Amino acid sequence: MNEQAQASRSYARSSSLFDRACEVIPGGIYGHVAPALTVAQGAPYYASRAEGCRYWDVDGNEFIDFMCGYGPIVLGYRHPEVEEAAERQRRDGDCFNHPGAVMVELAEKLVELVDFADWAVFAKNGSDMTTWAIQVAREHTRRKKILMVEGAYHGVAPWCTPGTGGLIEEDRAHVHTFRWNDLESFHAMLDGYASEIAGVIVTPFHHPLFRDSELPREGFLQSIQTTCRQHGIVLILDDVRGGFRLHLGGSHRYFGFEPDLSCFSKAMGNGYGISATVGRDALRRAAGRVFLTGGFWNGAVAMAAALATIRILERDDVPRRLHEVGELLCKGLSERAASHGLQLRVSGPPALPFMTFANESNLHRSQHFAREAMNRGVFFHPHHNWFLCAEHGPAEIERALEVADAAFAAVKEKFGD
Amino acid sequence: MNEQAQASRSYARSSSLFDRACEVIPGGIYGHVAPALTVAQGAPYYASRAEGCRYWDVDGNEFIDFMCGYGPIVLGYRHPEVEEAAERQRRDGDCFNHPGAVMVELAEKLVELVDFADWAVFAKNGSDMTTWAIQVAREHTRRKKILMVEGAYHGVAPWCTPGTGGLIEEDRAHVHTFRWNDLESFHAMLDGYASEIAGVIVTPFHHPLFRDSELPREGFLQSIQTTCRQHGIVLILDDVRGGFRLHLGGSHRYFGFEPDLSCFSKAMGNGYGISATVGRDALRRAAGRVFLTGGFWNGAVAMAAALATIRILERDDVPRRLHEVGELLCKGLSERAASHGLQLRVSGPPALPFMTFANESNLHRSQHFAREAMNRGVFFHPHHNWFLCAEHGPAEIERALEVADAAFAAVKEKFGD
Repeated sequence: MNEQAQASRSYARSSSLFDRACEVIPGGIYGHVAPALTVAQGAPYYASRAEGCRYWDVDGNEFIDFMCGYGPIVLGYRHPEVEEAAERQRRDGDCFNHPGAVMVELAEKLVELVDFADWAVFAKNGSDMTTWAIQVAREHTRRKKILMVEGAYHGVAPWCTPGTGGLIEEDRAHVHTFRWNDLESFHAMLDGYASEIAGVIVTPFHHPLFRDSELPREGFLQSIQTTCRQHGIVLILDDVRGGFRLHLGGSHRYFGFEPDLSCFSKAMGNGYGISATVGRDALRRAAGRVFLTGGFWNGAVAMAAALATIRILERDDVPRRLHEVGELLCKGLSERAASHGLQLRVSGPPALPFMTFANESNLHRSQHFAREAMNRGVFFHPHHNWFLCAEHGPAEIERALEVADAAFAAVKEKFGD
Repeated sequence: MNEQAQASRSYARSSSLFDRACEVIPGGIYGHVAPALTVAQGAPYYASRAEGCRYWDVDGNEFIDFMCGYGPIVLGYRHPEVEEAAERQRRDGDCFNHPGAVMVELAEKLVELVDFADWAVFAKNGSDMTTWAIQVAREHTRRKKILMVEGAYHGVAPWCTPGTGGLIEEDRAHVHTFRWNDLESFHAMLDGYASEIAGVIVTPFHHPLFRDSELPREGFLQSIQTTCRQHGIVLILDDVRGGFRLHLGGSHRYFGFEPDLSCFSKAMGNGYGISATVGRDALRRAAGRVFLTGGFWNGAVAMAAALATIRILERDDVPRRLHEVGELLCKGLSERAASHGLQLRVSGPPALPFMTFANESNLHRSQHFAREAMNRGVFFHPHHNWFLCAEHGPAEIERALEVADAAFAAVKEKFGD
C-alpha cells in the first residue's frame, strides 16, 4: 500500500459503535480516552485487539502504538511471561475472602526496590492512592493543607480532578497550588503557613494536558524536599505516570531527590489494574489509621502480574532500553520536522516523550499531524504525552519516523510552516 | 475426620505469612478483610485457591464459603462460562487506548435490565461510583448537601469512609445523616433545607458492620422517593452490595421504589473488578459534565465477564435460587440454635443473610461461633453480612447446618445460653 492509499482508512465501525454508545452512555466515550480529548472524527474510537507494540481497531486498522493504553503497557501488549504468571494465579483464583500470598511477595519486592520505602499498600487506580496519600499526610501531621502544582494531574477525586462539574468549594478549601519549576511561587505558599501544611504532592516531571512536558529544573525538587523536611511536611511523589518507566527504584532516583510517600500504578502490572503506595517507617502508624479498602483491591491476579512485570523490567533493564529507543524517536522527529522547515518542540523524558509545534498554541497542527499519522498506521496522541514500551524496537521507530515524515509534509502543506 | 479432629486445624502458614506482611504492610492486612475486623488469631488470613462455593487457605484448609469474596462471587468461584468469556476477550486484549466494543453492549444490557435507566458508565470499585454519583447530584441541582443514613457504608472516599484517620471537617461539611427506617429523622433533616439538598443516598437495606441488617419498613424508601421528587432532590441507590443478588432489575425492584441513579459493583462481574452507575435521561447532561476516568476503567476483560455473568444470572434466574437456598440456611440456623436453647437473630434478605445472638452486644458469641465453624470447614463471618452464590446447593447448606450445630454446641458450652 502506498502512503496515499493508507491515508484513506475507514473508521466506519468505530463511528457506528460510537453512535450506539451515545444512546446509552453520556458522551458515548468519557474520560481520558474521549474523542473530544483525542482526535474527534475520522479516528479509531474502539480497539479490537493488541499485541506487542501494535493494536487493531474495530475496523481492522493496524497501528504502531505510542500510547500503550495511556501508560500501563510497558512490556508490550499480551506479554507472554506476564500472561503466564497471571494465568497461573487465575487458575487458583483472584478475588477471595483474603489476600493471596502474592500480596506479601509484592510488598516485599517494592520495599526492596524503592530505597526509602519500608512498607507498601495496594489499590486499583492512581486516584485511589493519591487521595489516600494526602489523607495519610493529614493524619500524620494533624494539619489540613495540601500543596500541589498548578495544572498537575493527580486523578479524578474531588480534591484534584481537572474537571469542574459537581465540585463544591469545600472540596479544595485546603488545597493550594504553586507553579512548576518556580521556587519563589512554592516558598510564597509556605510563607507564614508552613506549620499548617500537611503535604506537598508533586509529579517527577510536569506533564500538563495540551502543553509541553517540563522536566524539573536543577534543584527544584531537591529544594522542595529540604523545605518539607524542615517543616515536618510530608512530600508525596505521584509516580503514577513515570513509575516503572524512568527508573525501577522510582522516578525520584531519575531526578535525584527523595519523597516520603510514592504512589504508583499504570506500568506496574503491564495492563493489569493495580496501584500502590510505598512509604517511610515514620508514616506507618498514620498509614494504618487511614482506612483503605476496595472490593477488588486484594485481587491476586493483578498482583501476580505486577510481580512478573517488575521482575522482567529488572532482568531486561527495560527503563534503559525505553530511554534509548525514546531518544531515537525524539531525535528522528526533530530532524524530520526540521527538514520540512517545521518548528518542533520535543519535551519530556525520552521514555515518555511529547511533541508540539512551537509556532502554535491552538494545537491545530498537532491534531492534523496525529490524524495524518493515524491514517498511515501510527498512533501519536496530539494532546497528551506518549509512552514507549519494550516492544518498540529500531524497526518500529524507523517506520514511525517514515510515517511522521509524511504527516509533517501534510502539516507543511496545510499550514505553510 | 470427626468433628473434634476437624476442630484442631492449623493456620501456621497464614500466621507466618502475616508475620512477614506486618514488616512490609501497615497492619499486615488492611481494610475489610483485616483480621481485626474478621477473626483475630487462629483463622485463615490468606487464600490459596477457590472453586464453586469452596475455598482453600494457604494451610490447605477447605471451607464452604458464605462470604463469596465479600460479595463479588455470585455464580461461584471460577465459573466456567464467565472464565471462558473473559479468556476470549483476554486473548484479544484488555487495557487499550480505547474502550472495546463490549463497553457498548454492556451499557445497552444495563439500560435494558434496569427500568429507570437511560444510560450507564463504568469504573472499578463501589467508592468510585458512589463518589461520582453525589457529584452528579450536585452538578444537576447546583446544590451542595447530601443526606445519607447513619452508619451506612458507601465506600472509603473522605465524604463517607467509616474510618476516622486523615479526615478534615470540610470533607463532610455538607454530608448529613438521618436514621434508617426513621422518616421523622429524614424529614427533620429536610425541614427548612430541602432546597439546599442535592441528593439522598441510600442502600436498599441497612447492613451496618457489627449489627443486625435491617430491611426497609413498608413505605420508608417510597416516602423518601416522593419527597425527593417534590423537592428536585436526586435519589441515589447504592446497590453495590445487593445488586445482582436480590433482583436483576436492581434492588429497588425487590423493595418497590425507584431511584434516579443506581451504583453497582460486587456481584456484577463474578469476581472481575468492575462497577457501574446507571441513571435517568434527566441526569445525562450533568453526568457528562462530571469528569470520570481511571487507568483501567475501560478494561474490556471485566466488561466481558460482567456481560457473561449478567446473562447467566438472567438465564438461570439466580436471584430466585439464592433466595430459596438462603431461606433454607436461615431457617436451619434458627432451628438448630433453638434446639440448643440459644437466642438467635437472623436478619437481612435471605440471599445476603446475617445472624447475631440476641442476648449479647459484644459479639463474643458470634466470634466463638465463627471460629468454631471455621475449624470445621465453614466460613461464616462474625461481624459482616454473608453472601450466597449459585453453587450453594442443598448439600452444602446441609453440611453448613451440621457444622453450625456443632458450633452452637460450643457456644452453649462456653457461654451457657
